[in-house]
Amino acid sequence: MSKPLNVGLIGCGFMGRTHSNAYRKVYNFFRTPLRPVLKAICDVNADKAKTFADTWGYESVETDWRKLLDRKDIELVDICVPNNMHKEIAIAAAKAGKMIICEKPLALNVAEGQEMVAAVEKAGVPNLVSFNYRRVPAVTLAKNLIDQGRLGRIFHYRAVFLQDWTISADLPQGGDALWRLDVKAAGSGVTGDLLAHCIDTAIWLNGPIKSVTAMTETFIKERKHTQTGKVEAVGIDDACAFLARFANGSLAVFESTRYARGHKALYTFEINGEKASIAWDLHDLHRLSYFDHRDDSLVRGWRSIHVTDGDMPYMNKWWVPGLQIGYEHSFVHQAADFLEAVAKGQTVGPTFRDALDTQKVCEAVLESARKGTWVDVA
Amino acid sequence: MSKPLNVGLIGCGFMGRTHSNAYRKVYNFFRTPLRPVLKAICDVNADKAKTFADTWGYESVETDWRKLLDRKDIELVDICVPNNMHKEIAIAAAKAGKMIICEKPLALNVAEGQEMVAAVEKAGVPNLVSFNYRRVPAVTLAKNLIDQGRLGRIFHYRAVFLQDWTISADLPQGGDALWRLDVKAAGSGVTGDLLAHCIDTAIWLNGPIKSVTAMTETFIKERKHTQTGKVEAVGIDDACAFLARFANGSLAVFESTRYARGHKALYTFEINGEKASIAWDLHDLHRLSYFDHRDDSLVRGWRSIHVTDGDMPYMNKWWVPGLQIGYEHSFVHQAADFLEAVAKGQTVGPTFRDALDTQKVCEAVLESARKGTWVDVA
Amino acid sequence: MSKPLNVGLIGCGFMGRTHSNAYRKVYNFFRTPLRPVLKAICDVNADKAKTFADTWGYESVETDWRKLLDRKDIELVDICVPNNMHKEIAIAAAKAGKMIICEKPLALNVAEGQEMVAAVEKAGVPNLVSFNYRRVPAVTLAKNLIDQGRLGRIFHYRAVFLQDWTISADLPQGGDALWRLDVKAAGSGVTGDLLAHCIDTAIWLNGPIKSVTAMTETFIKERKHTQTGKVEAVGIDDACAFLARFANGSLAVFESTRYARGHKALYTFEINGEKASIAWDLHDLHRLSYFDHRDDSLVRGWRSIHVTDGDMPYMNKWWVPGLQIGYEHSFVHQAADFLEAVAKGQTVGPTFRDALDTQKVCEAVLESARKGTWVDVA
Amino acid sequence: MSKPLNVGLIGCGFMGRTHSNAYRKVYNFFRTPLRPVLKAICDVNADKAKTFADTWGYESVETDWRKLLDRKDIELVDICVPNNMHKEIAIAAAKAGKMIICEKPLALNVAEGQEMVAAVEKAGVPNLVSFNYRRVPAVTLAKNLIDQGRLGRIFHYRAVFLQDWTISADLPQGGDALWRLDVKAAGSGVTGDLLAHCIDTAIWLNGPIKSVTAMTETFIKERKHTQTGKVEAVGIDDACAFLARFANGSLAVFESTRYARGHKALYTFEINGEKASIAWDLHDLHRLSYFDHRDDSLVRGWRSIHVTDGDMPYMNKWWVPGLQIGYEHSFVHQAADFLEAVAKGQTVGPTFRDALDTQKVCEAVLESARKGTWVDVA
Repeated sequence: MSKPLNVGLIGCGFMGRTHSNAYRKVYNFFRTPLRPVLKAICDVNADKAKTFADTWGYESVETDWRKLLDRKDIELVDICVPNNMHKEIAIAAAKAGKMIICEKPLALNVAEGQEMVAAVEKAGVPNLVSFNYRRVPAVTLAKNLIDQGRLGRIFHYRAVFLQDWTISADLPQGGDALWRLDVKAAGSGVTGDLLAHCIDTAIWLNGPIKSVTAMTETFIKERKHTQTGKVEAVGIDDACAFLARFANGSLAVFESTRYARGHKALYTFEINGEKASIAWDLHDLHRLSYFDHRDDSLVRGWRSIHVTDGDMPYMNKWWVPGLQIGYEHSFVHQAADFLEAVAKGQTVGPTFRDALDTQKVCEAVLESARKGTWVDVA
Repeated sequence: MSKPLNVGLIGCGFMGRTHSNAYRKVYNFFRTPLRPVLKAICDVNADKAKTFADTWGYESVETDWRKLLDRKDIELVDICVPNNMHKEIAIAAAKAGKMIICEKPLALNVAEGQEMVAAVEKAGVPNLVSFNYRRVPAVTLAKNLIDQGRLGRIFHYRAVFLQDWTISADLPQGGDALWRLDVKAAGSGVTGDLLAHCIDTAIWLNGPIKSVTAMTETFIKERKHTQTGKVEAVGIDDACAFLARFANGSLAVFESTRYARGHKALYTFEINGEKASIAWDLHDLHRLSYFDHRDDSLVRGWRSIHVTDGDMPYMNKWWVPGLQIGYEHSFVHQAADFLEAVAKGQTVGPTFRDALDTQKVCEAVLESARKGTWVDVA
Repeated sequence: MSKPLNVGLIGCGFMGRTHSNAYRKVYNFFRTPLRPVLKAICDVNADKAKTFADTWGYESVETDWRKLLDRKDIELVDICVPNNMHKEIAIAAAKAGKMIICEKPLALNVAEGQEMVAAVEKAGVPNLVSFNYRRVPAVTLAKNLIDQGRLGRIFHYRAVFLQDWTISADLPQGGDALWRLDVKAAGSGVTGDLLAHCIDTAIWLNGPIKSVTAMTETFIKERKHTQTGKVEAVGIDDACAFLARFANGSLAVFESTRYARGHKALYTFEINGEKASIAWDLHDLHRLSYFDHRDDSLVRGWRSIHVTDGDMPYMNKWWVPGLQIGYEHSFVHQAADFLEAVAKGQTVGPTFRDALDTQKVCEAVLESARKGTWVDVA
Repeated sequence: MSKPLNVGLIGCGFMGRTHSNAYRKVYNFFRTPLRPVLKAICDVNADKAKTFADTWGYESVETDWRKLLDRKDIELVDICVPNNMHKEIAIAAAKAGKMIICEKPLALNVAEGQEMVAAVEKAGVPNLVSFNYRRVPAVTLAKNLIDQGRLGRIFHYRAVFLQDWTISADLPQGGDALWRLDVKAAGSGVTGDLLAHCIDTAIWLNGPIKSVTAMTETFIKERKHTQTGKVEAVGIDDACAFLARFANGSLAVFESTRYARGHKALYTFEINGEKASIAWDLHDLHRLSYFDHRDDSLVRGWRSIHVTDGDMPYMNKWWVPGLQIGYEHSFVHQAADFLEAVAKGQTVGPTFRDALDTQKVCEAVLESARKGTWVDVA
């Protein structure tokens, strides 16, 4: 029999929706030992919160996250607000003894991240950062294939995360979804928003990154800020690329931009091993490409694996072979794994500590771009 | 403000799940004027029904569909049982004044279908048959592009629905999901199960089909029947292909099989017009291929449209550009359109009458295959 | 050491060019025991023939094919003229004791084809019909994989040959390359021109075709004829589709048209076996798609084989792995195989007799389309 | 009327074949004003040279390139020997007043390259370096589209050249095709061999590169040398990646390796502009991908342009729409453009001077990799 778990979610934006959907669906498909109850939604904007509560079926509304944390009935706090608020809320939630799921990136910088890790570890509360792409079945499959040793010695890793939504100079910085262009709210541009995903996956699949050399660019130097109403300097990185060396001796190239016309969310990675290679592409997230040199040479080629069969990660919970799932399901899987782990008293990644590793690489990347030198990851 | 709409769903199989998921999600994304309430689930197997109710949050359980129809609190009856039970339940539900959503194909044959159409039209109840693929955004987009006249005169239509799940001779006929191999429960094999989808889409996109010539084959002639425990002759068509002529003068080729190794649910269609062509593939359902001869010849080519932007059908309700949805969403869209139409007192297709047109083509196909001649669609 | 072989080629059109190129290149890459010498080019149009001779390095020019056949120095006659002239020239060449390579289709009909087969077999001269696609390396690879038994029992074969070059009603019938629209010169439309290729490959890969049911259509009913200057009824089939049953029990669907907007020469085939499937596409002719059910299920998927490695058919003669060859190379391979076989006194297909089998299927297809019934292949 | 042009080619390896094939074919397809005559082949290995002469139809054989240069009948010298011999031969050929086509990269380093440029410019002889990929029709099309201003402001350029042929530790350095692993013969590894191609194309399409930061790696540190018979340190770069900034403000990422399992010759580039983007892939060299933001949003998507129509660069000389050409044709186009230009007294790139620009970037890349800093391109 499943037990209810009361969720209080903070932030009614894009991520608030993906997480709410996950909590609503997870039991329907995974019959998890803990069954999320949408207890309270919190947003500074009361109207927005009320509509959100009605839409998703939250039982109550809060407009002050501190009040949410004070509530005894809330067991899991889910933080879906801009990056500059992660630290304060997460530390308070840890002190209040709540389980915490926090959106990525962990924090504005490594220093903040370290405080957060200390807080959750001191409080001993279950914690997870929502690097959701790990749990796209094709990506989890990639992890499994690597763990099985199929690739052999790794030579190369390459990843890009390409978008094109900020090319227009008329787009303001700030305002709802546009806080990602405001350096005060976001901390950085594509580095924290997009490359953080690439780095989390990369460390998960290929181990620690030792050193990096990076370049960043801000193509549109000034944008109107919706809060001040003035044209202000843009503080974020519109694009960032870096070379890296992994601890295992492999070389990597990473690139991200919001100025790659034609790509909306093209997160791709490829890993080349001595014996086999793997590639994945978020625009067709239900497929994994795999090449195995050990195949009979007459029929050797890149395989396009349609990751929908029942023996694929998570897929026995969904439909039937051939029928694809989408983006949102990665959050359902995340919720399922988290609830399963909590019920068993186990830890599941990416924890705050895992996310701190990614934060360190991001910080090294930004430092390298400023200095124009190679930087070792702390 | 939305009003609740009480749903009673019959059948806890694969389709029971897709429909339940749709009812649970539709308001979260579409904020429909009517909000489905999962009032009752009905299955002859009480244990199965109870687990299903717990999984999906149904408020009550019935084991006799007649009792479900007797309940005054049920407003919408959703029929997700094998084909041979559609007629009886649907006619009773119509008599009980319920709205009806029925899984496809409409019936075992045209005669049954005609009775069903008569019943719902006499009762004046909203009715819909779940040819869900119409509401994959890429397919709806295809419809819109055609309706805009972009293709010009149509010359060709071709569609396949290829699977490979019944190649093993050890697979029994009958038993849970395997009723699709039992001719008594299913009425036919791939013709009613898969080609019915292809035909529904084809008529929707390209108008009436006038005549057909077909061939069918049953590759595995005998299979054990789970209900009798005996090896019995297989009565369904394992594969069916047919040529057709549309009323608009275009030619068509249709093919379906469960013996196409490497394809799980490869429903594809292509339509070639004088000015432009369109192609779609269920294995990458979030894409539409489009070729426009009017393009500047230097940059003319098949376009792969990643159907995720906000101006694409249904997509402003989901996530952000670049992030794909999956199979299950077609049912959510179907629920949304149905609820919207019911609230406005409008009709939305495919109605039982629309589905009867598809049934007529299926029947002509099977007759042609038996006789070895061209058959006009009645 | 190689010996020279004197070639006389009739017809300066598209096929005259592909064959001339093959003769010029074959020794450079295959170092065949017989080395073609471009001895004479023949065309009724003397200017055209002279320019062609200069372009390709033919040593002499003829304007009457009978004179060419009279020449003692000509050993191999290559027939690259419209279909309605194949029979007369081929029979005369056979009587003159020449080796013959003839463009496809073999003849206007089965009766002609039978006379031609009788003539070459009586004369005992090496003979080959230029169904060049057999010798695209990916297609030859498909043949090899099938011959190795990798596919198991075959269930399905499907092939299309789609073009879009005759959609304009302004296009005349007749005149240079347009003789393919003139039924008197061509005998039929897409059936003899395009489906003949599909059928030749199909028989080669999957054995004899037993019976067919077909439909044809002529979308543009009248076109100006360049020779008469008048608008005349179009006698060819613009499109043709047919269902077929192979002797091995597998089912097939074939389709061809010149009205499929967006496709220039999209010849594709797919063959589904119990254990594996194969697919190929002329628009990317250097790739073969292969799916093997015996693969470990976690990494099972369609493989895209880039047919460029040295162990692929013919490819050790060309460049290095990864570098693709193109359309014209299929003719070079044909020339190489023919020269090799002649030198060894062996036969190489497709012979006139092989091509007659294809002709019989074409004739059954056209008969079926006229009658609207299934027709057994003679 | 065409005039003969006597060619003397030095080097019977892979490139000797591609160039010989080009000279043999160019007139057949382009009817160039100058018609190459294969006058002499030169190789230190007399047997190899004789076989090569027989294979390709060279009229004479030389074993000392100096003798070839002394011959009055030789008008064009084509240098297809390892990189460390380019300088000496090219300078001597220039002094002898010969036209020169030289394989890429131009030289071992910038200093050598500068001497070579000085020599050909002083002598006033036509000169070209064989960066053949410029003349793949899809790549030329990319150039034309960019020159038409279709892309708008350029933000990003990315290119990779990935191979996997040296992964085995058993492969020796040196010996025939393996001179590319011997630093003395090759000068560098993937930088000069593969990235040089990427850089040439990049400068051609996107203008000068200003600065770079690079990393290189030699994965297999020691290999047997075939000439000494001993295991020796490997001096070449097995892999190289670099970040770059173009003069036009765009950012670039380049990567090359011979350790990317599954890729044989995967040269790809992509360029993202404000209005449109272009991508190309050598493994399907007959296609160009193009995305245009100005398209109607409902049908906006990446277009796969099958570059085979007659209005595509060079393609009116080959076959008919839909029929692809391959790798070797880029050399035929190079020969055609060179012969056309020479006949008109014009210059055609890439000249030695153009190739020197590429050499400078290569040198900056290698310097950056050594120093671990950004390096400005001289």
